Amino acid sequence: MSGLIALDWGTSSLRAFRFDATGRLEETRARPWGIRHLPEGGYDAALAGITAGWPALPRVACGMVGSRNGWREMPYLDLPANAAQLGNALGSVRAADGMDVHLIPGLRDAHGPDVMRGEETQLIGALVLRPELSTASTFILPGTHSKWAVVRDGAVTGFRTLMTGELFAVLRQHSILGASGAEAANDAEAFARGVGAARDSGAAGALSRLFSARALMLDGALAPASVPDYLSGLLIGEEFRAALADGLARRDAPLQLIGEAALCERYRHAAALFDIELPSPIPDAAAHGLWQLAAQADLIHSREPSAC
Amino acid sequence: MSGLIALDWGTSSLRAFRFDATGRLEETRARPWGIRHLPEGGYDAALAGITAGWPALPRVACGMVGSRNGWREMPYLDLPANAAQLGNALGSVRAADGMDVHLIPGLRDAHGPDVMRGEETQLIGALVLRPELSTASTFILPGTHSKWAVVRDGAVTGFRTLMTGELFAVLRQHSILGASGAEAANDAEAFARGVGAARDSGAAGALSRLFSARALMLDGALAPASVPDYLSGLLIGEEFRAALADGLARRDAPLQLIGEAALCERYRHAAALFDIELPSPIPDAAAHGLWQLAAQADLIHSREPSAC
Repeated sequence: MSGLIALDWGTSSLRAFRFDATGRLEETRARPWGIRHLPEGGYDAALAGITAGWPALPRVACGMVGSRNGWREMPYLDLPANAAQLGNALGSVRAADGMDVHLIPGLRDAHGPDVMRGEETQLIGALVLRPELSTASTFILPGTHSKWAVVRDGAVTGFRTLMTGELFAVLRQHSILGASGAEAANDAEAFARGVGAARDSGAAGALSRLFSARALMLDGALAPASVPDYLSGLLIGEEFRAALADGLARRDAPLQLIGEAALCERYRHAAALFDIELPSPIPDAAAHGLWQLAAQADLIHSREPSAC
Repeated sequence: MSGLIALDWGTSSLRAFRFDATGRLEETRARPWGIRHLPEGGYDAALAGITAGWPALPRVACGMVGSRNGWREMPYLDLPANAAQLGNALGSVRAADGMDVHLIPGLRDAHGPDVMRGEETQLIGALVLRPELSTASTFILPGTHSKWAVVRDGAVTGFRTLMTGELFAVLRQHSILGASGAEAANDAEAFARGVGAARDSGAAGALSRLFSARALMLDGALAPASVPDYLSGLLIGEEFRAALADGLARRDAPLQLIGEAALCERYRHAAALFDIELPSPIPDAAAHGLWQLAAQADLIHSREPSAC
């Protein structure tokens, strides 16, 4: 019997994918067992739990499981990095069941410096699914820590982390911008207004407009319940403004989203206000990337091309 | 008997100044009775407590005491606004002792929109102390919500609020940038490095460099205990970068600090890294502004020029 068990193991969640020998995805499971929320028994218990009933197959994992606070720290791989280089850089940790879990390293951009863990696997998966983007493109991976990554000739050549999701959360929960206590409305107009404020902030940037979320409310020009959407627009819009300002995004190269549908939809709306048309996000990029890197690392006996 | 009792009444603290009829400052008191931390008995108790033993004199107050959540809401005065216009716009609230407290309105910049309460009085006080700055200058008032205010021909003509102090606090206390838990070192080099990162971020701006505080630490290039100073430098440096980018600060017009010595010293260090030499801050601007506006409002019987 051959195939692969692939794990996308982040800070707050754990997802597992079971592939057959041809790369067909047979089952997906998810548990809230991120590395900061492990069940009793730690990594071994989480692994045994999420793979219960599955056959003994080679196992590969990406994400924070390979971080300093993870199961075993995997050193970052420096840029530029392609699928072959990543596949050759796997390490492993021996689980309590006597079998290894192979760990995919994160990437380091010495220029920032900046680092990622998990997104490198999504990027590889996206390139498998959309090989036409391998030549020259920029990927946006929205999230708590959004990543903007540049790909040239199949390799990740640069990236930057924007703390958009985390900043939004701490400002709402702990700053005066969340002080109204109003329930958040779903206000697309306020979102667009925030995006516009970031776009029109010019070289000064949206950080210099942050207080506008409060001032507009005091002015009666923004309903308290719409402040969160305005703030979301301001911070997401700032990603586009900054990326265009320093060449991380270029109007003449494809821009592609990877990630969860609802959040990506916000990015598509924001992009439209910059006159950028973003195609639909690539789903399940992590699963495809895990398969691809396991194949590169020779973990899979059948070497037929992935059909997942 | 004549003279003035002047109150600088903010969110977290209350300061009281007693002037004689000529504007000489005779006594200063401070209590932790900001409008969010009033003693039992509320505003009246705070007023009675901080003025205990003082004669019955006209009373004037500036700051959040005149806000929506204050003693009585004073509408903002729109820009441009000078001392005469502010002095003519005072309102009052009747205290339990049967006498009025005259309230100075805050200012509103319709262009932002943006608002201030309390800083307008400091600006008027600063212009009394440094009349040569009346023609054309920019004032920096660092704090939880820093203000950059432009003065032309004795009037405040524009300003912007930067949430630097609050942002620093919430990021340290609630984000991954404070996650190391290390005691903050006093690391002037890390501060300068943060300022440099903001300065060198160009049109992309420092928000796109926020994660560097984490990445540098993971990279071993920044000690965990130095992250707070780096972050402080990044955020304060961003004030200068943004203000220069959009003309709020100009290299050919005087730039003047108003505020507390230690915080202003950080701003002077940051300015030096932008090749801007900032003079020492103007102290006690609030007290001088309160006297000046009370005089404008005819609250003081003796109209001799201030000698405070």
